Amino acid sequence: MKSHWIAAAVTLSLGSGIAAEAFAQEKPENYIRFRKANQQVVSWHMRQLAPMVKGQQALDVAAATNAANVLAVLAPVFATGFPAGTDQGDTRARPEIWSQPDKYKQAMDRYIAESSKMLEAARSGNADNIRTQFGALSKTCSGCHDDFRKK
Amino acid sequence: MKSHWIAAAVTLSLGSGIAAEAFAQEKPENYIRFRKANQQVVSWHMRQLAPMVKGQQALDVAAATNAANVLAVLAPVFATGFPAGTDQGDTRARPEIWSQPDKYKQAMDRYIAESSKMLEAARSGNADNIRTQFGALSKTCSGCHDDFRKK
Repeated sequence: MKSHWIAAAVTLSLGSGIAAEAFAQEKPENYIRFRKANQQVVSWHMRQLAPMVKGQQALDVAAATNAANVLAVLAPVFATGFPAGTDQGDTRARPEIWSQPDKYKQAMDRYIAESSKMLEAARSGNADNIRTQFGALSKTCSGCHDDFRKK
Repeated sequence: MKSHWIAAAVTLSLGSGIAAEAFAQEKPENYIRFRKANQQVVSWHMRQLAPMVKGQQALDVAAATNAANVLAVLAPVFATGFPAGTDQGDTRARPEIWSQPDKYKQAMDRYIAESSKMLEAARSGNADNIRTQFGALSKTCSGCHDDFRKK
């Protein structure tokens, strides 16, 4: 079982530059903890942006750019967090992640692309761009949660 | 108590570009969860680098650079995770973080600087640079844990 899992981890890379072999030493439960932690940091930075987007707080371009940079860096990192064999345990990941890999990859690619555009929008300093892009990014979050995360 | 904590959060910025006011809406327990999650992602990427540093795995410069980039981005983020009022609860943070702010800030600044140099070393592709800098960075981790984290 373990060697099966390692082989799966080595063959799956999900388009990230991070070498799959670097993950082979990690246990499935570590993957699960890692990907949850990653998204907690993502969520924190979405919450940093939200009040600026909603006009509850003045737009601080430097702060928004910092937050968006974290989002842009951590989106492709998240995409490395679901190799085969990490579907059991303390996780709400749905089996469709592994049974519908093309659909899942498309969703991840959209999330990564919109995160990258969020950074561009923040850098532009244009409040309308930032608001529009925050909406587009949020949509990829909720879309993936709807399709690939248990309630 | 709450307004006191918010005021403290607003006045403390620890040198990060992230606006302190963006944090004011967050509860102390959210800070604690966030900073722990942040360091889990850091730890994951240190573990990605370790086998390359130790020669247990071939050096993959792209993978090492990706991992080091995450480290460089998340070090200053971590430094925003300890405003006054976040010393209680599910945390091993020692009171010295707040009672010796200059010493603490120096430790954080070293950590941030060494993380940034880790990215430079990874980009250089030079195995000796990477090994030396990994050691220097690890030292700032353990130094801070020794001084500012409960056993």
